Amino acid sequence: MKIIKTIKSLRVFVSAARNAARTIGFVPTMGALHRGHISLIERSGKHGDFVVVSIFVNPTQFGPKEDLAKYPRPLRNDLRICEDHGVDVVFVPDAEEMYREEELTWVNVDKISEPLCGRFRPGHFRGVATVCAKLFNIVQPDVAYFGQKDAQQLAVIKRMAADLNFPLKVISCPTVRETDGLALSSRNRYLSPQQRKDATCIHRSLRTAHEMIEAGRTNPKTIVAKIRKIITAAKSLSSIDYISIVDADTLRDVSRITGKVLIAIAARFGSTRLIDNLTVDCRAR
Amino acid sequence: MKIIKTIKSLRVFVSAARNAARTIGFVPTMGALHRGHISLIERSGKHGDFVVVSIFVNPTQFGPKEDLAKYPRPLRNDLRICEDHGVDVVFVPDAEEMYREEELTWVNVDKISEPLCGRFRPGHFRGVATVCAKLFNIVQPDVAYFGQKDAQQLAVIKRMAADLNFPLKVISCPTVRETDGLALSSRNRYLSPQQRKDATCIHRSLRTAHEMIEAGRTNPKTIVAKIRKIITAAKSLSSIDYISIVDADTLRDVSRITGKVLIAIAARFGSTRLIDNLTVDCRAR
Repeated sequence: MKIIKTIKSLRVFVSAARNAARTIGFVPTMGALHRGHISLIERSGKHGDFVVVSIFVNPTQFGPKEDLAKYPRPLRNDLRICEDHGVDVVFVPDAEEMYREEELTWVNVDKISEPLCGRFRPGHFRGVATVCAKLFNIVQPDVAYFGQKDAQQLAVIKRMAADLNFPLKVISCPTVRETDGLALSSRNRYLSPQQRKDATCIHRSLRTAHEMIEAGRTNPKTIVAKIRKIITAAKSLSSIDYISIVDADTLRDVSRITGKVLIAIAARFGSTRLIDNLTVDCRAR
Repeated sequence: MKIIKTIKSLRVFVSAARNAARTIGFVPTMGALHRGHISLIERSGKHGDFVVVSIFVNPTQFGPKEDLAKYPRPLRNDLRICEDHGVDVVFVPDAEEMYREEELTWVNVDKISEPLCGRFRPGHFRGVATVCAKLFNIVQPDVAYFGQKDAQQLAVIKRMAADLNFPLKVISCPTVRETDGLALSSRNRYLSPQQRKDATCIHRSLRTAHEMIEAGRTNPKTIVAKIRKIITAAKSLSSIDYISIVDADTLRDVSRITGKVLIAIAARFGSTRLIDNLTVDCRAR
């Protein structure tokens, strides 16, 4: 496994694989790798890709009051995980390598960036879209893998890739969960034992919502109220950013549950912000 | 010479050339080709490139009151010019091919897009940067050629390519002029004989400005006043959008002429808006 820090070396190394007719698979991460990331790496490996993983805690997607400084950076462990899972190249640029000059160019994905997390993290998806555009141009992958856990990020990247005609395929992989249902996240390590226990209410509420829809409920307000009731019962909950039921593609609120909808939740336990979601396709029934 | 209308066919055709180890040269145009465009095509050809020319009148870079509808589209003549100058592929997508869905993703280049033409054509450089990002991803050229005549466009594209790490080189080519100095432009054909004659004042004023700087003048106000005097003497002048002396890289106003400066002018004759510019490198003296 090759560990590369500069854009220039990365390009040379990946183009050699490209010239050898390998499909380039790309898993962009901020490190602190867990089984969610591993599932993306394994998916790429199964596909026979030349697997490139980037580890870069991108400053431009953090707000001024967010956790950029304390975001976990267990690089040695991350590299071991990559090595163990057959990654070909790990790209670990520093911020100066990725942003050499003052960044003046920004990629904005209108509408899709605005609801849900967009309302609580202004500029976040602009930072995500911009760094992904940069990474796509640096790695030039044939396929890029993202987790469904960050559903809005996935929607933003898919739309950006389509709108800007990036010559690659975006593949989404299912959320990986703990046995008690909590979605894996690099931020779970911030949780106290009590918060960790309480945080399972998010997934529990999503399952209940799913059952209600299966049972024929179509009014999003009824379902959102039920979710809210389940989550607010958690003792260590600090606040709920949102509980939303939206169209799975446009991320716009729906007034009636029909077609393919996304149920998305963001809630805080202490200062730790957790997100989770579930897609329900009513057309499939 | 291959004429291609769809993104899919273009990708197939260009990747065959890429696999044959050809350097891909790209000249993006809005058609109505003149000797300025031809100089870009020839530059690419001399470089030994597989030459791709795009002809696309991009709606997203025109304002609602601008000349999108009446912009010249002499396609047959354009294709003949391409054929005559050894172009390998002409890409002529229609607007539906380039913008399949509502475009939600926009590339903004802050600061550099704001002064000069940016003040008079809001959204113009956003449209230019976005369509160039799309075309770069469709053609995947190794080199892209732009004319110095559109100096701000060139600065915007260069900065976008650097900031977003596009894997290509942007090469600028000198402005091509009529024998009386008028910069070639697809919009010159709108001019009446009187306007056409008067329009030479723009280049004349730039030459005078250049002489003044050569003679040691360093106050931009003195030089701008002289340029204004020369241009306002033209009978058929309607208005001057701007006469600016700016830093050649940042496009910010300079208070003293030193280093590399860009003298840029936009003026209207009837409803026809003409632009021209001159770069003066004081360090070279």
